[in-house]
Amino acid sequence: MNAMLHTIEVAGVVAFACSGFIEARRKRMDPVGVFTVAFITAFGGGTLRDLLLDRRPLFWVENQEYPILIFLLALIATPLFRHLRHAVTESAIEWADALGLGLFSVTGTSLALELDMPAFVCAMMGVITGIFGGVLRDVICNEIPMVFRRGQLYATCAFTGCWVYLGMTYLQFNDAAALLAGIISTFALRMLAVKFDLKLPA
Amino acid sequence: MNAMLHTIEVAGVVAFACSGFIEARRKRMDPVGVFTVAFITAFGGGTLRDLLLDRRPLFWVENQEYPILIFLLALIATPLFRHLRHAVTESAIEWADALGLGLFSVTGTSLALELDMPAFVCAMMGVITGIFGGVLRDVICNEIPMVFRRGQLYATCAFTGCWVYLGMTYLQFNDAAALLAGIISTFALRMLAVKFDLKLPA
Amino acid sequence: MNAMLHTIEVAGVVAFACSGFIEARRKRMDPVGVFTVAFITAFGGGTLRDLLLDRRPLFWVENQEYPILIFLLALIATPLFRHLRHAVTESAIEWADALGLGLFSVTGTSLALELDMPAFVCAMMGVITGIFGGVLRDVICNEIPMVFRRGQLYATCAFTGCWVYLGMTYLQFNDAAALLAGIISTFALRMLAVKFDLKLPA
Repeated sequence: MNAMLHTIEVAGVVAFACSGFIEARRKRMDPVGVFTVAFITAFGGGTLRDLLLDRRPLFWVENQEYPILIFLLALIATPLFRHLRHAVTESAIEWADALGLGLFSVTGTSLALELDMPAFVCAMMGVITGIFGGVLRDVICNEIPMVFRRGQLYATCAFTGCWVYLGMTYLQFNDAAALLAGIISTFALRMLAVKFDLKLPA
Repeated sequence: MNAMLHTIEVAGVVAFACSGFIEARRKRMDPVGVFTVAFITAFGGGTLRDLLLDRRPLFWVENQEYPILIFLLALIATPLFRHLRHAVTESAIEWADALGLGLFSVTGTSLALELDMPAFVCAMMGVITGIFGGVLRDVICNEIPMVFRRGQLYATCAFTGCWVYLGMTYLQFNDAAALLAGIISTFALRMLAVKFDLKLPA
Repeated sequence: MNAMLHTIEVAGVVAFACSGFIEARRKRMDPVGVFTVAFITAFGGGTLRDLLLDRRPLFWVENQEYPILIFLLALIATPLFRHLRHAVTESAIEWADALGLGLFSVTGTSLALELDMPAFVCAMMGVITGIFGGVLRDVICNEIPMVFRRGQLYATCAFTGCWVYLGMTYLQFNDAAALLAGIISTFALRMLAVKFDLKLPA
């Protein structure tokens, strides 16, 4: 279970960072900008959650290898992305991003629940963890956050997954099962939204 | 007194949230964006203050009913605003917003004063509490914050009210009187600014 | 040594605030905006670092004279800048800015090191302290942060200076020497970048 969660975490971090790389390069940023935007996309949501919950040390402070990984990826981002422009890669990033969204959101909810916060606040903390990296990315890139514009369901998938986790926890399922169910439902709903172009009403 | 402050608080939160609804809908956001922007407008200032002062739990974490209220309002924001476009409503929102500005600013100053911060910093914390919800709203909506552009006095009213509160506290008035005087002077100055189009010099 | 560091600090704060004044006035903000943007440019980086490291009281809370100084400067910013438009002034601001960048970055790294954070994270905290005031200034002014666009080396100078400091600390040099070497190398590299138009590759 732990090895699987760790694999999802790495995949999610890399997928989030990739969306930062792509956006920063589209804005013609230099390597400093490419690294910073990728870093903020990957860890901005979790960092904001930790500030709100007053948790320290921050995830990326304890796991120095993640910032270093993104630093190295930023150095090779330009040649890397030139070679990776295949439909196969885009689809792989989409899968990894949906898995990461599920993992980050549900663990965010779980951390808030440990602090005995009320249920709706726990779900909000989960969604903040999952989506605010992307929100900060878009704010820094001077765009209205994509997740707030009318597109395929994204935050809604995270919100649903968080409630699945909360519901199973209240029903006394063990934590691993609830975590897994939350991640899978986020992931499945997101994949359905991409495939069938599901959107919220205007 | 407490019942009156609570009423002002609810009115202020709803008025701040409304300005978030309006801005988010102008930017054609979907319900996720409408909720988030309204939420950040209502609670962004207080949350930033609590991060700066290191206060926990956050106001909206302790009072789950506020996020839920804004969530429900976001769901009905579209039909609601179609029916509410009357001068009467606009003027009601303006009153409630000015009251909320006064309440949030003066209580922000009061919390900083309890932590024995120096007077100018207390006044700044008050103004931050009152105006940064709107600042964050405009940053997310990709606009230069309205409160920084040359318009009718807004932050200045909050700043004045905070100093009225601080002055009365130093003169040993009891806290309720100082609070009330701070709120009323913010409110009165703001209403005068709207009525007579008062602005700062360029 | 302490008197020298204090002089650099004042020069750095004023230089950072000046870049905030200039940007806020270019955006036609009123005095409220001019003060806030200058304040955020000067103290935004250090405040973000303190939030991430969970340090209180914040620098500008303990040193009330800094916000008051910026407040007074904001009141006279308009006539001041009309009279100061000389090449001599611009060059003085550039010097003070480079010194401030060095001081803020290296002390940021030093504070993270005291908390036993890993080396790469210490360097990041230093760079965040040095550059995020400017990043927040640009975000509020609705621009893509200048430091992320392809210009003369800036964040890179801070990053280099932080590693010089870290290297000398690991080699057991005393702290004052390491601090000074870090500041000087940041400053020197920045001045070279300005003079010879050094940039990162695209």
